[in-house]
Parts: sequence; structure tokens; C-alpha cells
Amino acid sequence: MTKELNIGIVGLGTVGSGVIKSIEKNRSYFKNNYNVEFNILGISANSKNKERSFNVSNYKWFDNPLDIISENNIDTVIELIGGEDGLAYDLAINSLKNDKNFITANKALISKHGEELSILTEKHKNFFGFEASVAGGIPIIKTLKESLILNEIRKIYAILNGTSNYILSNMGKLNISFDVALKDAQDKGYAESDPTLDINGEDSAHKLSILNSIIFSEIPSFKSIHIRGIENIDLIDHHYSSEFGYNIRLIALSQITDNGVYKEVTPMLVDKDSSLGRVDEANNIIKIIGQESGDVVLEGQGAGEGPTSSSVISDLIDCATGSKLYLFSKSHSELSNSTDKISSEERAYYLRFFLKDQKGSMSNLTKLLSDSNISLDKIIQKDENNNNNKDNFKPVIMITYPVKKDEIDSLIDILSSSDIVSSVPLHMPILVKG
Amino acid sequence: MTKELNIGIVGLGTVGSGVIKSIEKNRSYFKNNYNVEFNILGISANSKNKERSFNVSNYKWFDNPLDIISENNIDTVIELIGGEDGLAYDLAINSLKNDKNFITANKALISKHGEELSILTEKHKNFFGFEASVAGGIPIIKTLKESLILNEIRKIYAILNGTSNYILSNMGKLNISFDVALKDAQDKGYAESDPTLDINGEDSAHKLSILNSIIFSEIPSFKSIHIRGIENIDLIDHHYSSEFGYNIRLIALSQITDNGVYKEVTPMLVDKDSSLGRVDEANNIIKIIGQESGDVVLEGQGAGEGPTSSSVISDLIDCATGSKLYLFSKSHSELSNSTDKISSEERAYYLRFFLKDQKGSMSNLTKLLSDSNISLDKIIQKDENNNNNKDNFKPVIMITYPVKKDEIDSLIDILSSSDIVSSVPLHMPILVKG
Repeated sequence: MTKELNIGIVGLGTVGSGVIKSIEKNRSYFKNNYNVEFNILGISANSKNKERSFNVSNYKWFDNPLDIISENNIDTVIELIGGEDGLAYDLAINSLKNDKNFITANKALISKHGEELSILTEKHKNFFGFEASVAGGIPIIKTLKESLILNEIRKIYAILNGTSNYILSNMGKLNISFDVALKDAQDKGYAESDPTLDINGEDSAHKLSILNSIIFSEIPSFKSIHIRGIENIDLIDHHYSSEFGYNIRLIALSQITDNGVYKEVTPMLVDKDSSLGRVDEANNIIKIIGQESGDVVLEGQGAGEGPTSSSVISDLIDCATGSKLYLFSKSHSELSNSTDKISSEERAYYLRFFLKDQKGSMSNLTKLLSDSNISLDKIIQKDENNNNNKDNFKPVIMITYPVKKDEIDSLIDILSSSDIVSSVPLHMPILVKG
Repeated sequence: MTKELNIGIVGLGTVGSGVIKSIEKNRSYFKNNYNVEFNILGISANSKNKERSFNVSNYKWFDNPLDIISENNIDTVIELIGGEDGLAYDLAINSLKNDKNFITANKALISKHGEELSILTEKHKNFFGFEASVAGGIPIIKTLKESLILNEIRKIYAILNGTSNYILSNMGKLNISFDVALKDAQDKGYAESDPTLDINGEDSAHKLSILNSIIFSEIPSFKSIHIRGIENIDLIDHHYSSEFGYNIRLIALSQITDNGVYKEVTPMLVDKDSSLGRVDEANNIIKIIGQESGDVVLEGQGAGEGPTSSSVISDLIDCATGSKLYLFSKSHSELSNSTDKISSEERAYYLRFFLKDQKGSMSNLTKLLSDSNISLDKIIQKDENNNNNKDNFKPVIMITYPVKKDEIDSLIDILSSSDIVSSVPLHMPILVKG
């Protein structure tokens, strides 16, 4: 017997339009191979008259998206507008309370309201699909929920934000400044006009909190993630990293430690030849370090019409064929609160700052380091005649031997307040086995 | 309501024992998170008294594995004995005919009897799970059947055999001969005592034919795949490939051409820095070149107790939660026959042979090449004093400009029969964008 889904779609941008075109194009394919039919019974977006890549007049238009939920015939709502609160939140909550299936690409919403959504989904036995919310076309949610189920995952490393990866990989490859790389990303459609959340690490953190909920059975918690963005990375950092054999990438990582699950989004130095170091353009990658299945790596496009709408369609198929899993693998009652953990792991760090070009600076610096118990593996202070010398400060680049996070944080505080160093030093951990 | 599966397991080697231990260990996890219970109601293997990593006496033993099918209480049979015919085949056919679910890791069986299995599965509406048959712990079957459903895949490249990859990567890395690398693989448990199918490419071809059936809706056909193994690769081939910037890998590839789907398993030269070139040890990788989702890459361990038994367990969960998909995504009636296609694509080739060390040899060779319309990009003929010089023949290594497969095949024939060349030249295509 053919299973029919009667769908309302809110948000008709690139992804929303892509989903509609995909449904139009693949009707007989869905019928023949999955025995399902998708009927679009309502659409809604900000503006009805905007030019779109499908024929809007083929579908019933709702000026108020929330009216879609009141439409009794509609059993499945697809939300593609974004935003952690406001309309997206109202749509989600009301869809679930009205026993409708809900499919979304909205990582901010799930990251902030994951617990409430999980409780409602269980109570009302809805299907809640969010494959498109993390890593675009890479089927990471389904893989974690349905395939690597015994994996007893200890650790994940990932590149989850295409915009920042596009900027970082192009700065290094094309020898261009952050601003030029960002402008290029915006011209090519990889970055929004306001790229704040991509660049400051928050978008990656939203996605990481969703993965953590599935892997480590935590209530999604953005606040328990240590977040740093890529705003302060300079072209010289790419030069020196490269000289040491590394690329700079914005890494989202979680790992089980003695104190719980440590979570971090931060730019890191990653071996050029490693899985993560090689990822360029707007691609995403997730490396899962498991006990049973060993390491599993998934790589692909993290955004765009094709990848993201494919993920929405795969949720639709799961919804129609009756997938009955908990939102985050486990029942909401088994999810635990995640708290802010300090990593006890020792890591090597890259440090870059500008040191006052005067007699005694270097010996002062050496004393500060030795007082802080930081040993150096490598140090570069080139007397270059270039515009990296700010007034009478010259760049110093150091790689430390492995130290704890609080030790490096405390060194940064000391250096920042010292008058031999201009501004706040940049520091990035070095990823081992990326 | 809790869904129970009553299971019979045939084959109690590494994987079979792993599955049993996993079921024993995760009872409450399966119950809480998936609302399923797995009851093992029968086990069978060659020898009852062999030492095993679980307590055999906890389960009902069947001397004749086929008796498990007659046990009315058992609804799900897991076959982990292998072999394309014989007992494995009898178990599969009889399980399906008796309306039992069937889960297997047996690529040879599916590759040879895929059409019949697909027909029976549809007729009897059984669940047929085979995630463990391709690429161990990498969830490639589920990803293809359920996630990348709109992907309109044009091409896949893959490393599907861990044994041969272990041998090839270690020959290059450790500078050891084929025989030493094979012996090491056997000592470490990566290769069977009879490694023929791993080394001659047939195991990869079995797996490729299964992937092709899902991706390109073909009746699995081993015979339509051009297969060459790694037996003739010498240490000097690794040296010279490396000098040109390549690693040698056994690549399984399928791609849509103007004439249909071209399929091949062959050792190839792959960029050292590319996704496939970097894969070492017994790892597997699958690179999917799609239209919608873009490229998606999955990498992980291709064999072993943990990875393979994890895949069997994920099939069990799917079976219990009621997955109702066709064996190969499409109904058997929509599968087409795959026929032997010649690639029309032009590729650069690596050629290595031993040329008679006498006046005129090189000009004879040049004439043969020019008669065959083969142009050379690079040629190396080092006058080395080493044991690669066979009698008075010296190694010559060439990289051609792109040529068609039939052109290179015809050149190989000509060189093989020429008396200026000793034995059959080795030729390997060069993979672009690996």
C-alpha cells in the first residue's frame, strides 16, 4: 500500500525550492522504489512575488506560515527558514503539539531547544527529521543514529562550517587576506552578507551540540562548548603554519575525558596530509573515533541546494517508511546535562604575537615562559622588513611542547598584560592525528 | 510495544562470535533505545568444540545448520560462513522461502545470486540485510539505499579490499617485497591462508557488483567487471610510482559512459595526496561522485570483528524496526542486465617492462610505440646496477599520454610478443582526482 505524506513547506529559499523541484521531478521514482507519494498541500515564505525556480502558483499559498499547522490535511511540516527562536520555534512546537511530523535544517533551533523538542516528539510520537541541519549532504545524523550504533564513540573531530573552511583554505592556498577571502566567499554564495555566526564559530558549535546529543546522550548545550572563531587569524599565521607542515582549520571536537565530555570549536593547526588538513573549499568532514567500528570518516559538501535538499528528501523517505527512533537516539529522560569541562589533555600550541623590538624583550619573554612552565619546541623571530612589523613590534611565532589548556590560557593572560607584547597573542592548539 | 527478533546464527568465527557478544552486552541498550529484543534461539558451525570467545553452552546447538530454518520459532537467520554456493546458498534460499529474515556478510553469494535473492525477498516480503558484505564497518549500503537517494551518482571510486591495500601500502612504505608484505598480512590476520580472492581482485569485484546493483540498478554481475589483481606488482613499481608522485592502490571503479556502466577492478596509480592515495593499512574508502549531493567520501575499517559485527547489528536493528526497502533499492523487475563495456575514456598509463640491453632496442621500442599511436609523457631507463636487471634486460618505465583502453591493450600484446621485451609488461592506469 502506498504511503502518502501531505506536506507543508515554510521557507522557499535555495533549499526549500530545491526540495519542491526534487519532489516534482522524482514522483515516479519515489512511488516505484519506496512506495511513497509526497503531496505538497501548502507553501509559505516572506514574499509571495519573489522570483523562484519553481512555479509558485502550482501550490496553495499561506500568508501566515502558522496557518499551515491548522490545515488538517497536512501531516508533515518542513521548516527551512532558520533562526533559533521566533517563527521557526513556533512552527516546530506547534507542529509537534498538533501531531504533525517535522523536518528541518535548523541547527540553531535544535541546539537551543533540543530538550523541549525531544520531549514533545516522544510525547506526540511524531517523526522529527534533521539530517539537513548538520553537514549538508553528508548523512551523518542517520549514520550515527542507525549505523554506528555500537560504536562506543570516544571522540569526534570535524569541520562543520563550509564558509570558514572556504576562507581558511583559500587564505593559505591563494595567499590572500581574511577580508579578501571573505569577500570572495560572499561573491560565490558561500557566505551570507552577515557571516558572523560562521566566522565566530557559533554555527559549528550549534552543529557540534547536535552531534554530541546523539553520540554522548547529552541535552544539546551550546554553552558547554568552548568556542573561538577565525576572526583573528592573519595571513602570516598561514605562512608560518605552512612552514611547520600544517594547515589552519576551524575544528569542532568532542571527546570523552576523565571529567566528562570535553567540547570545543577552535581554529587548530592540522597536518597538511591528514584527513582534516586536506579538506578545502566549502567542504565538511567528520572523523569518528570509535571502539568497535574503528575510525570512520565521512566527507562531502556541507551546504548548497543539492546536498541540503537531498538530506531533506531522505528525511521525508524515512518519515514515510515509518522510522520510529528517538530524536537523539535515546529517550529524553536518559539525556544528561552537559556541563562546561576543562580539558585535562596536554596539547602543543601555536602562539603568535608581536614583541617589542628593544633590548631585553626576548629575555623578558623567556622569563615569562619559564615562570609559566611553558617549554618551546620551535620559535621563529625573523627580522623581516615587511608590514607585519607593527610600529616597533616584530612577529614572534612559537610552537610549545604539550601543555594543559589552563596553562596556556594563563600564559596568554600574562603576555596580554605585558608591555613587551602588543595586543592579545593568537594561540591555536595543534591537532594530533587529524 | 517491544519488537522481538528470534535469531539463528550460522558461522561462529570472528564475526559470528562478535555478533553474539554484542547482543549479550547490549541487551538493555537495545531495549531502551530501539525498543527491540534479540533472542538467540540457535547457533551452528563446523565444530561445536572449538574454543570460542563466548559460552557456546548458553545456546541451543544445531549440528545441521539447515535445521535452524525448520525451527518455527526462529524468524531471522544470520549467515556468516561465506562462499558463493553450497551451504550459504542453501541457507539463504531456504530462509527466504520459509519467510525468515536473512542477514549476511557474504559478498560472493550476493554477487553471484543477487537476482534470485532479490526476487525471493520481494515475493516473500523478507528483510534481507547485507551491510556487512561491503566495506566492513563503513555504512555504505544504508547510505546508498537510504541517504544518497537522489544523488544521481555518475561514478564511484573505491578501495574495497583491506588485504590488498595492506600489502600495497606496506610495500611502498616499508620498501618490502610482495611476498614479505603478504606474509606480514597473514601474520597480522589481515589475509587468509589462501589469499587468492583478495589478491586477484575478485573479492573487490564481488563488492563492486553489489554497489553497482544499488547505484545503477543492475543485476549483480561479476562477469561484466574487468578484473586485474596485484600479483604482478613489483617493488620497483612502487619506487617509480612514488618518484612520479603516486601510490599504487587496487581501485574498484564504476562510471556511467555513453555505452552504459563501465566497471573495473585494477591496480592504479593514485596521487599520494588524494583521498584514495592516502588510504593505508587495511582501510577501505568509497568516493561517490554525485550530481545532487556533490562528492561524498566514506572511509573506515573494511574488516575485523568490531566493524563487521557492528554492521550486522545495524541490520538487526533495521530488521526489527521494520525497514521495508527492496534488496537493491529497486524492484527486481526494474533491474537491468549489465554487460561487458569497453571504456571509451582516455587515460594515462604507467607501463613497466624489461627491455633487451642491446643496440637498437630503444629505437625498436620507439617505433612500436609510434606505430601504436602511443605518445609518452615520461620515460625512465636507469642504468642501475641492481638485481632488477634480469639477465641482459633492463627495466623501462613509461607514463603515456591519455589513450583508450583498447589501444593500451593492443600495445601490451605487441610488446609481449616482441623479442626486445622480456615477459608481459605491467600496465596500470593513472587515476585522476582520486
